[in-house]
Amino acid sequence: MRIAIAGAGAMGSRFGLMLHQAGNDVLLIDGWEEHIDQIKQHGLQANFNGTDMTVDLPIVSQTNLEQQPPVQLVIVFTKAMQLEGMLQDIKSLLTNDTKVVVLLNGIGHEDIIKQYLPLENIFIGNTMWTAELIGPGQIKLLGSGSVVLQNIAPGQEETAHKLAEILSEAGLNARYSDNIRYEIYKKATVNASLNTLSTILEANITTIGNTHTALDIIKKLIGEFVAVAAAESIVLDLDELVANIEKTFDPAGIGLHFPSMYQDLIQNHRYTEVDYINGAISRKGQAYGIPTPYNDLLTALVHAKEDILIKGI
Amino acid sequence: MRIAIAGAGAMGSRFGLMLHQAGNDVLLIDGWEEHIDQIKQHGLQANFNGTDMTVDLPIVSQTNLEQQPPVQLVIVFTKAMQLEGMLQDIKSLLTNDTKVVVLLNGIGHEDIIKQYLPLENIFIGNTMWTAELIGPGQIKLLGSGSVVLQNIAPGQEETAHKLAEILSEAGLNARYSDNIRYEIYKKATVNASLNTLSTILEANITTIGNTHTALDIIKKLIGEFVAVAAAESIVLDLDELVANIEKTFDPAGIGLHFPSMYQDLIQNHRYTEVDYINGAISRKGQAYGIPTPYNDLLTALVHAKEDILIKGI
Repeated sequence: MRIAIAGAGAMGSRFGLMLHQAGNDVLLIDGWEEHIDQIKQHGLQANFNGTDMTVDLPIVSQTNLEQQPPVQLVIVFTKAMQLEGMLQDIKSLLTNDTKVVVLLNGIGHEDIIKQYLPLENIFIGNTMWTAELIGPGQIKLLGSGSVVLQNIAPGQEETAHKLAEILSEAGLNARYSDNIRYEIYKKATVNASLNTLSTILEANITTIGNTHTALDIIKKLIGEFVAVAAAESIVLDLDELVANIEKTFDPAGIGLHFPSMYQDLIQNHRYTEVDYINGAISRKGQAYGIPTPYNDLLTALVHAKEDILIKGI
Repeated sequence: MRIAIAGAGAMGSRFGLMLHQAGNDVLLIDGWEEHIDQIKQHGLQANFNGTDMTVDLPIVSQTNLEQQPPVQLVIVFTKAMQLEGMLQDIKSLLTNDTKVVVLLNGIGHEDIIKQYLPLENIFIGNTMWTAELIGPGQIKLLGSGSVVLQNIAPGQEETAHKLAEILSEAGLNARYSDNIRYEIYKKATVNASLNTLSTILEANITTIGNTHTALDIIKKLIGEFVAVAAAESIVLDLDELVANIEKTFDPAGIGLHFPSMYQDLIQNHRYTEVDYINGAISRKGQAYGIPTPYNDLLTALVHAKEDILIKGI
């Protein structure tokens, strides 16, 4: 299958590498010139569960796609705020048959994608795989993970199952979910809690969990998710979601990890995805007439911190 | 007049010094042994608008007051959270005639004081004077300021006027206010906005003002003050209060200043007064059935940061 990975950072490179190893015709697409040059010259260098390997994978700049024939499948792995620009750039690769799989963090990406492709072609989900970018052209892939996905348009279940199969044949452990919006909301509650609190408090997950006020903040935050999801006929269980987050506080698990938003803003002074996580709940709340003050305020605080650390105001 | 300054830090020392210079019989009371020893041995050393002076002022530990005769006036200048402990310690100095003047930041201190003295003896207000503690026994007093105060119990207007006069005779520029609860709320909105945001964002006032989200956060915060005050029949004007805070963003004014809560927590790893500022609005909101999510969340975030920076969790 001819597959484009639109956004070949750490996670996109993992998917590209594993799909290539499984015999697919994979094209990496990215916007970071140094990363592209490095992979063109030396191949993608990966430490795959301890084994070093160099994989010869074609990679092109998203601004230079004229020569490329269309693809059957696009797997999008940009940052949320780069999604629209990427879709704009890869338009020439899309036909009426091209399927798009979106596994990004955050909520509501299909609203952007449907401007470029019919709903029938769009498949959403999320992934528990991890990946780390060591430097241009270099990635580190540890542990195992999984993918869940579902069609958006009714009648596309068979295609969704087939796409999960293609991913699983490459070892990506994918399954069809008949309740993907629930899964996406569930993962978003984790990100909305841990990403923003770690960024505001400059603390890892265990430290957040050790403060005497974090759990109450998280309950209020997730309470707003529950109310917004209910307006979309999606039933979220507050206690289950809070318990799901409390598990992450364990330092023997992922507790000592600093979430991606912390890495983006505090470590690398890059803009965050907060508008697609907490900010998405604020926008939906406003549309449905549901107050979301905790998500509103945390979004505004992260933006203030972006102004301070990135613009240096 | 025999006056006790209960809490002789920077501001208490300023009031004590100026009231002593005006001929009052002033007793400083504090809990910091190093500060007490220094003043006992070398006097209070002050830089008063550029002039260095050493003032011989009696100072005693709040835990060692047995020998002290009662006083006619107590001016309280503890941190908000030390108020109750101080009142407990100085009980032997209070008679049925002792007046107490409270000019602390925050809201609702009279609820604590009235457990120790009748309402008729309590006078509340605030001050725009500043003072800086350089080290044990050493203070720096720059610029000018003012005091406003009012009786709590009806019928005590004359005494309130007289207390303002005593302060003004010492150069403290005090006046009677017939609307002190309004003045206290007004000052609390400044502290609730700038103290907490500077502590959470680790930024000075100008930087806070330069972020594109701060003004919206401040409007929401103060909107909750307006609603809570209305339940106490106090009319606050949102636009006026927001404009009052916008003025502070000017770097040519106090904009480059880091508010006291930042100094307490970020610089000195000490507990903050947030429970008496934003937290007071949360408690009142809960009592009146008025939602105060912005003040709730900011209070919780400051407490989380206290846990991290003070307890080192």
